[in-house]
Amino acid sequence: MIKVSVIGATGYAGIELVRLLSSHPNVKLINLISHSHGGKKLQDIYPQFSLHKKIILGSLDIEKITDESHLVFTSLPHGASSKIIPKLYKKGLRIIDLSGDYRYLSEKVYEEWYGYAHPNPELLKNSIYGLPELYKKDIRDSTLVGNPGCYPTSAILGLSPLLKGQLIDNKSIIVDSKSGGTGAGRSNSVELSFCEVNENIKAYKVANHRHTSEIEQELGLLAGQDITISFTPHLLPIKRGILSTIYASLKKTNSFSDIYEVYKEFYKNQPFISIYPEGKLPELKYVNGSNGCHIGFTIDKRNNRIIILTAIDNLIKGAGGQAIQNMNIMFDLEETTGLNKIGWYL
Amino acid sequence: MIKVSVIGATGYAGIELVRLLSSHPNVKLINLISHSHGGKKLQDIYPQFSLHKKIILGSLDIEKITDESHLVFTSLPHGASSKIIPKLYKKGLRIIDLSGDYRYLSEKVYEEWYGYAHPNPELLKNSIYGLPELYKKDIRDSTLVGNPGCYPTSAILGLSPLLKGQLIDNKSIIVDSKSGGTGAGRSNSVELSFCEVNENIKAYKVANHRHTSEIEQELGLLAGQDITISFTPHLLPIKRGILSTIYASLKKTNSFSDIYEVYKEFYKNQPFISIYPEGKLPELKYVNGSNGCHIGFTIDKRNNRIIILTAIDNLIKGAGGQAIQNMNIMFDLEETTGLNKIGWYL
Amino acid sequence: MIKVSVIGATGYAGIELVRLLSSHPNVKLINLISHSHGGKKLQDIYPQFSLHKKIILGSLDIEKITDESHLVFTSLPHGASSKIIPKLYKKGLRIIDLSGDYRYLSEKVYEEWYGYAHPNPELLKNSIYGLPELYKKDIRDSTLVGNPGCYPTSAILGLSPLLKGQLIDNKSIIVDSKSGGTGAGRSNSVELSFCEVNENIKAYKVANHRHTSEIEQELGLLAGQDITISFTPHLLPIKRGILSTIYASLKKTNSFSDIYEVYKEFYKNQPFISIYPEGKLPELKYVNGSNGCHIGFTIDKRNNRIIILTAIDNLIKGAGGQAIQNMNIMFDLEETTGLNKIGWYL
Amino acid sequence: MIKVSVIGATGYAGIELVRLLSSHPNVKLINLISHSHGGKKLQDIYPQFSLHKKIILGSLDIEKITDESHLVFTSLPHGASSKIIPKLYKKGLRIIDLSGDYRYLSEKVYEEWYGYAHPNPELLKNSIYGLPELYKKDIRDSTLVGNPGCYPTSAILGLSPLLKGQLIDNKSIIVDSKSGGTGAGRSNSVELSFCEVNENIKAYKVANHRHTSEIEQELGLLAGQDITISFTPHLLPIKRGILSTIYASLKKTNSFSDIYEVYKEFYKNQPFISIYPEGKLPELKYVNGSNGCHIGFTIDKRNNRIIILTAIDNLIKGAGGQAIQNMNIMFDLEETTGLNKIGWYL
Repeated sequence: MIKVSVIGATGYAGIELVRLLSSHPNVKLINLISHSHGGKKLQDIYPQFSLHKKIILGSLDIEKITDESHLVFTSLPHGASSKIIPKLYKKGLRIIDLSGDYRYLSEKVYEEWYGYAHPNPELLKNSIYGLPELYKKDIRDSTLVGNPGCYPTSAILGLSPLLKGQLIDNKSIIVDSKSGGTGAGRSNSVELSFCEVNENIKAYKVANHRHTSEIEQELGLLAGQDITISFTPHLLPIKRGILSTIYASLKKTNSFSDIYEVYKEFYKNQPFISIYPEGKLPELKYVNGSNGCHIGFTIDKRNNRIIILTAIDNLIKGAGGQAIQNMNIMFDLEETTGLNKIGWYL
Repeated sequence: MIKVSVIGATGYAGIELVRLLSSHPNVKLINLISHSHGGKKLQDIYPQFSLHKKIILGSLDIEKITDESHLVFTSLPHGASSKIIPKLYKKGLRIIDLSGDYRYLSEKVYEEWYGYAHPNPELLKNSIYGLPELYKKDIRDSTLVGNPGCYPTSAILGLSPLLKGQLIDNKSIIVDSKSGGTGAGRSNSVELSFCEVNENIKAYKVANHRHTSEIEQELGLLAGQDITISFTPHLLPIKRGILSTIYASLKKTNSFSDIYEVYKEFYKNQPFISIYPEGKLPELKYVNGSNGCHIGFTIDKRNNRIIILTAIDNLIKGAGGQAIQNMNIMFDLEETTGLNKIGWYL
Repeated sequence: MIKVSVIGATGYAGIELVRLLSSHPNVKLINLISHSHGGKKLQDIYPQFSLHKKIILGSLDIEKITDESHLVFTSLPHGASSKIIPKLYKKGLRIIDLSGDYRYLSEKVYEEWYGYAHPNPELLKNSIYGLPELYKKDIRDSTLVGNPGCYPTSAILGLSPLLKGQLIDNKSIIVDSKSGGTGAGRSNSVELSFCEVNENIKAYKVANHRHTSEIEQELGLLAGQDITISFTPHLLPIKRGILSTIYASLKKTNSFSDIYEVYKEFYKNQPFISIYPEGKLPELKYVNGSNGCHIGFTIDKRNNRIIILTAIDNLIKGAGGQAIQNMNIMFDLEETTGLNKIGWYL
Repeated sequence: MIKVSVIGATGYAGIELVRLLSSHPNVKLINLISHSHGGKKLQDIYPQFSLHKKIILGSLDIEKITDESHLVFTSLPHGASSKIIPKLYKKGLRIIDLSGDYRYLSEKVYEEWYGYAHPNPELLKNSIYGLPELYKKDIRDSTLVGNPGCYPTSAILGLSPLLKGQLIDNKSIIVDSKSGGTGAGRSNSVELSFCEVNENIKAYKVANHRHTSEIEQELGLLAGQDITISFTPHLLPIKRGILSTIYASLKKTNSFSDIYEVYKEFYKNQPFISIYPEGKLPELKYVNGSNGCHIGFTIDKRNNRIIILTAIDNLIKGAGGQAIQNMNIMFDLEETTGLNKIGWYL
């Protein structure tokens, strides 16, 4: 059994991670750390755990965690992660971080988009971007994984085959993403209250959302050149899921089946990717509750543009599920262990 | 034109009141006071006002308000209203208060349910409970109206004809109410965030919600004896509206049409009450957006219980609309002036 | 491995049952029968199955099903089940029926509430009401289980300890239930369309819903006398879950802890029941996604009434999950096998 | 008073039109025609009308309608409108048609996108595209107005100033629209049922939605050249409103205020258009319930792309409200008569 601790267990990403870990056949949960609720029973904060063994939330104790765990997940805000992780890293603990702090190759890019200098840039050199569909081998041997952001997961998985195959005009990429409210975490802001969100839609951080830089980093690596995209996130009256509508201009006149083969080939060994046949497109209800990323596309022949739709559950493939997928790889388990859940649709 | 000021103009009840007042043909809006947003443009807080005349929110200035207004609406939390209203009252201004502070006959009952002594109990003697269907004449001559709570409006209107007619066992009354989130006001609590409320239902303050006492006061007056009810409020994933399901045991075996006639007679001159024929029941979408209170009922012959359903828009008939109805009465206008809006259904 | 077939696999109850069965460690899915989609791939109807083995939906072939299965679940409308089940029963197959057709002791009660004579009343004598918390032993040995209705599950589990303990006035029982839309099945009625349901609440079939008779049968058996209740179902803008608010008059003046002990004792060996401590009440988000039934209550001392809140996921504890719980019992598996899932909260 | 009839009064667009017309000070409603409900009381179909005068729905009688009305609104599906309108037109009645049948200059384009030959193409020459912000003068003198589609209204109003000003690369236009369910009308399809729509998002008719051709026609006229766009509609779990996110490449490097001035100038006399200052963007809750079209934009300097957000209430500015705006113009009323309603936000 892998002894696992979670720091930041009671935020939305954290509790979903705990939910998934608690049914993982190879995991033993050790320390569940909650800044706000240390000392309380987990079931007092999240009563869905009441039928299961009573777990007491702990407070942060680096020594205890490193002594008792094989792996720690850190599910903290950016900035908070980079304060704690160097201490865990020094002790040799394997770490999967769900914040943005260890996703970047360049400390300069981090500073530009996060607004302050990275406090331990030397760790960026040793951290691996935890998108298994691109970096499985590196993840296997890694000590520190920067688990991808939810929007970037949906965008990069939708575009990778096209960029790798040099099929699109790299300047033409637009990512229009629609997200549920859990993406903002457990929050007490008026803006996220039910009466402000229901029967409403809004775009936010247009042209300046941090995830833009993460998407651009990975697309640039695939393309072999710098890429600048337009990325627009939207908040919708749903709890879970991200649907991204991605636009790009094709370099040549390709048929649906040409492109379909490119995607099938690119993802042929990826158990969580589902490529849709012509005429079908993914919806959130097909993926929510699962670690799947569903991808469909249409070619607009009138202007030779490809429109790609990707759907993920932001709390699973966009956070805790992907983190477990990374753990499975790091510990040489079958990649789907504990993650072969079917989406719930309803 | 009636010169009207609103103190507490940017909460949910306040802004809805302002929306309704701004299309009232006999009203001139004078001072819109906002504790949190004084000095700002209304349209910067609520952009739906952008196509209309630019209104600047003011800060509280009792002198200015009393000098310039014929009437003031106070849309403040209980406790806050009773700090301000004596000053307005002393100046002779007519006042409609939307809080619970001036709804009670008995300062003892207020203290029992609100947890502290009423700061100006002498005003309770002079205030009128602003439910026009029961107290139209008193309202006409009043200076200070305590505008009813949203739940009490839905409960009292559903039960009044039965109590007045001595038709039910007064000990058997149960009010099970379902409310939208605006009832809690504009709030930054985690409990009211979209992700906690959507796809959820919960009961709250079971057997101890303050509105219980307000319902009991009015039902007791109608019945001519003290009445104790059970009242259970529920929070639902909707924004507007209250549906109350009310249970009571009939004293005799009455037919539907017996009771129907009682309701029709009781409400014969009330323009906002709609009594449903046999086999039809009200739903929120029939009333939301309007000042209507729709009432339907079924008699469960197997146990001689009557089940009454009432539907109101909590922000209109349960707050600002009813307040305007009171104003219309106080200023000898047609009761429906500015309120003859059809519910929006969609 | 238990070889399992499902007749009616693509309705909402059916597909949820299939979802749960597909992760059950002791189950092998054999025939998934769909009247509307026979011959198609399951993933073409429900794409959430796309990452899993490709299942072809079958058409009804009694011979094939009985030859190949140890157990069949029938997830059909009432009336449809009773046409098929005698044929399956004759072949000796074990059956769990999710319709109302085999839940009754009395064919007369069935006829009264369903509006037509039961076509094979002799089977009613051999069928067991599949509520494991009451009938575990009978279920173990049964061939034909009538899986309880969703509303009855929520009502009966909330009331059983009180009736068994003779603690309440049996004439005082009121069940006010709030349900999500999946309770009505996959439907193309205008009334269930998004625009008619969202931001709305309605009561329906007040005082004449069929489930009333099912609740009364079971409560009557527990009490040892006929019981007549009032039952009001409501449709809410949610997909899953039933919250029932149940009212009854206590015979004596009991404290919270008196009653709490009664519940704890009654349910001491029931893995899916969770009794809430004083001051806490269940909400849908605590149970949705799980097979749990959460029960909390408050005593209204002012009128000596108990108000019980129960929460279940109507598609799991109220349908497919309970059916699997029954299967586990029938096949001598641990009762929680394949069902120890934590609710998803978000 | 303008005597007005509505053919197709009980669909979602129709009933919203009736709701708005019933508070219009210069309108007298004459015939409300409903194919499905002719002969019934309006309030029996839509109980929100119960507090108002009892209206009986009629069946189609061309003679009666033309004799009694000054103006008729046809709110029918495309194809149905073009069967009836020639008869009304021949009689000299003024007509505002809410379908797609009279929006096109070219019968060829109509045929291409609607899949059949236009049955009375000669009327296309005489019909006016009813977007008042572009064609006020033509509308004033028109007999037959083709009221714009909801998506086209949101797209064309967002792009017109840029195309007129030759500010963008005409090949770069992408319109990503998010719509509520009322856009699909009152429907009994499974796909539009609550349980399929809530907590879900989907794109549909990608690259082949009919409204594409309507948008292209109008943008082409503004630009003075043929324009091909990409248009992706999405269905969201909301009832009302369309938010369109529009992308285009700027020809030159423009500042926010450059473009802001262009929009302000273009719409300077348009009472329903609101242009947002830098840093603010429209949301649905700011416009729902009103006839407003709110427009905001951001310039993505890194790639010189402009991202425009437009918000309208699809049932008002995208259907019945705009139709009334057209009527006001045709009958020389103030353009805002009966339409100066503030959005309801909540």
